[in-house]
Amino acid sequence: MTRPRAVLVVGTGLIGTSIALALRSQQLEVALADLDSESLQAAVQMGAGVVAESFEPDLVVVAVPPYAVADVVLDQLQRYPNATVTDVASVKAQPIKQLTSSGQDIHRFVGGHPMAGRAVSGPSAARADLFVDRVWVIAAPDDANPSAVDDVRWLAKACGAVCVDADPAEHDRAVALISHVPQLVASLLAAQLAGADPDDIALAGQGIRDTTRLADSSAELWAEILASNADDVSKVLDGLDADLQVVRAALSAIAANRDEPADPHAVEVLRDSVRKGNQGRQALPDKHGGAASTYVTILVDVEDRPGELARLFAAAGEAGVNLEDVRIEHTVGRLRATVELAVAPGSAEIMRNALKAGGWQTRS
Amino acid sequence: MTRPRAVLVVGTGLIGTSIALALRSQQLEVALADLDSESLQAAVQMGAGVVAESFEPDLVVVAVPPYAVADVVLDQLQRYPNATVTDVASVKAQPIKQLTSSGQDIHRFVGGHPMAGRAVSGPSAARADLFVDRVWVIAAPDDANPSAVDDVRWLAKACGAVCVDADPAEHDRAVALISHVPQLVASLLAAQLAGADPDDIALAGQGIRDTTRLADSSAELWAEILASNADDVSKVLDGLDADLQVVRAALSAIAANRDEPADPHAVEVLRDSVRKGNQGRQALPDKHGGAASTYVTILVDVEDRPGELARLFAAAGEAGVNLEDVRIEHTVGRLRATVELAVAPGSAEIMRNALKAGGWQTRS
Repeated sequence: MTRPRAVLVVGTGLIGTSIALALRSQQLEVALADLDSESLQAAVQMGAGVVAESFEPDLVVVAVPPYAVADVVLDQLQRYPNATVTDVASVKAQPIKQLTSSGQDIHRFVGGHPMAGRAVSGPSAARADLFVDRVWVIAAPDDANPSAVDDVRWLAKACGAVCVDADPAEHDRAVALISHVPQLVASLLAAQLAGADPDDIALAGQGIRDTTRLADSSAELWAEILASNADDVSKVLDGLDADLQVVRAALSAIAANRDEPADPHAVEVLRDSVRKGNQGRQALPDKHGGAASTYVTILVDVEDRPGELARLFAAAGEAGVNLEDVRIEHTVGRLRATVELAVAPGSAEIMRNALKAGGWQTRS
Repeated sequence: MTRPRAVLVVGTGLIGTSIALALRSQQLEVALADLDSESLQAAVQMGAGVVAESFEPDLVVVAVPPYAVADVVLDQLQRYPNATVTDVASVKAQPIKQLTSSGQDIHRFVGGHPMAGRAVSGPSAARADLFVDRVWVIAAPDDANPSAVDDVRWLAKACGAVCVDADPAEHDRAVALISHVPQLVASLLAAQLAGADPDDIALAGQGIRDTTRLADSSAELWAEILASNADDVSKVLDGLDADLQVVRAALSAIAANRDEPADPHAVEVLRDSVRKGNQGRQALPDKHGGAASTYVTILVDVEDRPGELARLFAAAGEAGVNLEDVRIEHTVGRLRATVELAVAPGSAEIMRNALKAGGWQTRS
């Protein structure tokens, strides 16, 4: 495998410009193109590359909105008859279907999906290290050239990402489940807060904050992603909707007879739906990709002021055991916070003792 | 106001035993009662109090499952004609309605809702500091004795909680929105993972983990809570369902014509729903109860090994500015993590410089 020497990035938004910056930081030759000359100039000024003129790329990265992917890929395949062409869109099957039905030779195309993003968009939000340690899905059509697949793997690794192979249709089904529907559900739930009584919302704790965090995302981008994966997203939503209607029926039955003890069958329906959620959580892999682990959570109350976390983590560091996770929970109306430290069960006692030695009171 | 000297806790589950432990840690006289003698003995052995025999409480805390609250409260009001009686259930209007319709004098009853819990249950999970800095809603019926209200405020403060007054009906409406529906939505979403292809789930990132975190909760407890607040939960779900169906219709319309460019009207519907979610997030108060603030997020990559976080927070502490929030994002298949530090916009540069001085590379 010869590694690409000259890369053309078409589309200088957040993702395209970040890829260009990552490649430039390794002294690779990068050219840029964008229909929006303002965006293009901004990327050039950031040092992401030069404007593409009489440039002969080995690899073209198409980083345009989902709907434009197929057309731009076809155009680039024709312009550069020896180059590998890839894209970075969050959906993979539809563009490949469009490409295949074009009747053109698309053996030099391999789809990609770097699973990273930011709440902000545009070239000015780009970062050379946006993809470091993130998953980059390689979705190759069945008859893609092996050398084209190699080129796209090289690109992902050059950006610091972890390559994961996936069939395009499987990829779309997977992201519908683990990314697109959670995004939509977070938005739908957060939407119920819009226009609600501020006194009601004042009681909000960490639970609803976590559940709705994704709802901060860009409406422009997500409308396109959801539309491009409408089929798979719909299928997951069908399942969710069926479960929701069962729960609504049970709640309605209970509410209709609110002066009677709740119908045990209806309560069992509610219990079942929470239980099924418990099972779904168990299905999530742990952070290193293995089966879900159970960690022990140690709680510490800290004053919400500079330096307190440093003091706490210095004490935790004395334990010499790994922190699996950290969460901070704030209290409404108080300048205090509770820090949750997750450690492996075998390390909990060591951690508690180290914190105690550092003057911290722990809870479980 | 005379502060209660002797407190009877009826129901030695997680909440009741935690309250008893909190009061005992202040050398108050506490007696315990529970129909389940095993649970009662466990609480006694933890030092939560003595078994109630010929005990004359000033205050009775009813910490039984939601459905049993009204009956047990009435029983306690009759047994102890001079005592204040309170409860700790997550729903407030229905028990009060049942109490009122009993025709008995309920002026000595004041509802309470300490907003704290754990994923584990039972007396052995109890902690004296479970309520420290948590909100404890005081929901007094209209004609409650002022001295009874004082007693319940005293209880909440004795447990370290922050008192918030709420009308019972308003409380139930509020918790349906900010607690019960998020819990149910998290469960419904997580349920879609149960039985899904493990390869699909393997791509799961932090987003779905946060969105489904609440789904780890107890099915037994939550079925009762949801059933007890069926009316208000149903109303919030009606709104959510209406929004969901609009989105499903838009996605179906797009999926039905998947070979055509997506109908712009349908895409606008998707955009609107994400936008409404953006607005809902803006409505959430920030951690100190004010309006939502925008923080600047600074990203730092750390090796996932003991002591790294301590080194990082030591460097952050040198900045002398407050950390508003901390998140840790792990990478599938890698022993590395990205730490997100949120600081006020005016403090971002100072923080970045302090981290740089400590040898850390930051991203934004």
